[in-house]
Amino acid sequence: MDIQTYLSEKKKLIDAGLEAILSSEEMPVQRLEDGVRHAVFPGGKRIRPILVIASCEAVGGDCAQIVPIACCVELVHSYSLVHDDLPAMDNSDLRRGLPTVHKIVGEGIAVLVGDELLTLAFQTLVGLDGIHDVKRTRLIRELASACGTAGLIGGQALDLEAEQKQVEKTSVEEIARRKTGALIEASVGMGAIAGDASGEDLARLKKCGASVGLAFQIMDDLLDAEGEEETLGKPVRCDQEKGKATYPSAFGAKRSRELAQQLTEEAVGLLADLGEKAQPLREIARLLLKRKG
Amino acid sequence: MDIQTYLSEKKKLIDAGLEAILSSEEMPVQRLEDGVRHAVFPGGKRIRPILVIASCEAVGGDCAQIVPIACCVELVHSYSLVHDDLPAMDNSDLRRGLPTVHKIVGEGIAVLVGDELLTLAFQTLVGLDGIHDVKRTRLIRELASACGTAGLIGGQALDLEAEQKQVEKTSVEEIARRKTGALIEASVGMGAIAGDASGEDLARLKKCGASVGLAFQIMDDLLDAEGEEETLGKPVRCDQEKGKATYPSAFGAKRSRELAQQLTEEAVGLLADLGEKAQPLREIARLLLKRKG
Repeated sequence: MDIQTYLSEKKKLIDAGLEAILSSEEMPVQRLEDGVRHAVFPGGKRIRPILVIASCEAVGGDCAQIVPIACCVELVHSYSLVHDDLPAMDNSDLRRGLPTVHKIVGEGIAVLVGDELLTLAFQTLVGLDGIHDVKRTRLIRELASACGTAGLIGGQALDLEAEQKQVEKTSVEEIARRKTGALIEASVGMGAIAGDASGEDLARLKKCGASVGLAFQIMDDLLDAEGEEETLGKPVRCDQEKGKATYPSAFGAKRSRELAQQLTEEAVGLLADLGEKAQPLREIARLLLKRKG
Repeated sequence: MDIQTYLSEKKKLIDAGLEAILSSEEMPVQRLEDGVRHAVFPGGKRIRPILVIASCEAVGGDCAQIVPIACCVELVHSYSLVHDDLPAMDNSDLRRGLPTVHKIVGEGIAVLVGDELLTLAFQTLVGLDGIHDVKRTRLIRELASACGTAGLIGGQALDLEAEQKQVEKTSVEEIARRKTGALIEASVGMGAIAGDASGEDLARLKKCGASVGLAFQIMDDLLDAEGEEETLGKPVRCDQEKGKATYPSAFGAKRSRELAQQLTEEAVGLLADLGEKAQPLREIARLLLKRKG
């Protein structure tokens, strides 16, 4: 199957899964529901949940229940965007070509929208039918760990602290590993756990995910520094304006691109033993390196 | 044992448990750590986690592992206070006689402090050693449900919407049930689950918790309307200033007090079959009715 067809088919599955999760939740306040929906739909490329599916397939796992599990990663990703965009944080007015959630529903409700998306991720995992509780525990552990100080929250806190400061190169990597790498690592990890991967395959896939995540963040930084607002659907040169620690500012554009390439090759190399069934995972890793938006 | 001695002994256990959880978490940014610690310590009366312990005892359960479970409820309670106090929400500068978290660490980090406390609650439950995964799932489900739209988030969203509006009496109860009742119900429920309660006892205890929670919110509203800032450690008459929907404003002070009394009696009545081991739970319910701060 062509990778573009693969991505668009999986995206449809994810969108339907997210719709099912949101529809099952009774929202007592219209603005809260509007905010949650605006945070989740139309959404972006759904890369993280697609990685969950591709990783489950890569270990030859049973993918019958993978969609709701994959959706939980997207809920967490959406929560982090809503909170990061808040005026008190990155103060972003535009995301994916549309006003950010707090511009639509106000700041107070936007905080609650993020809280709800995070909560809903755990509620969904803990409410999944027909899954063994040992596996459920491992999935929740993987996701919670990527949310905490070793992941999203720690990365965003470091990022806020780093603004307007001269940041060392090691810190730039440290921020990227937590802010972006951890959730992408968890995505690949959760897919492998759901697919009953061996311990060895799980470790290899998580390492692969961490490298893909880091390469993803490098490309993100490069796109902010060199891309166009129209293609990206969000303002560009923001990192520079805010004095953010980025790969291009710390390493230069050329070296950043080389690093992303090297990380992607490492990631693909880790999948060597998994054969044909890991082909989508390989192609996604390579595709992320070429993305324009 | 005297109930005051009981409360102060359990409070010590909870404080030590919370310290153990926070110490085990590596915080990459000082302001994040400061904010998290300020949100959790010195803390208040620790009523919710003490209810977890008292409920476990009430069903004659093994309480060996109850402290970390109880602490998770307090982490969630602390998270909700940090986010509710934000300028975009209730805009409160003072809590328990001290500046609120965002006054100390700034709004951006305060959002992350709340996110971290919520995440840490789930991380702690999912990381608990020596607990069967079936029981773990039930505990996480109970807590997550109290966090979501049927609980804290739904209640706070309704509360924000209700400001400056003429709110019906049924809505006042609806807000209180979600905003305060749900987490107190979950506290009692989690204690019962941890203590391997029968289905019947669990249902009765949860009903008891819901009534105690509602009575607690009524007393809170009354204290805001009639209490003194010095005793409460936070500004009073805030509900009135913000045009909030409260029990005294909807039902009058006298009727509100009667309702709280009635709910407490109902709660205590539900514990009739549990004998001597439910005595602390009964006394806590009665004590909450008499609190001055």
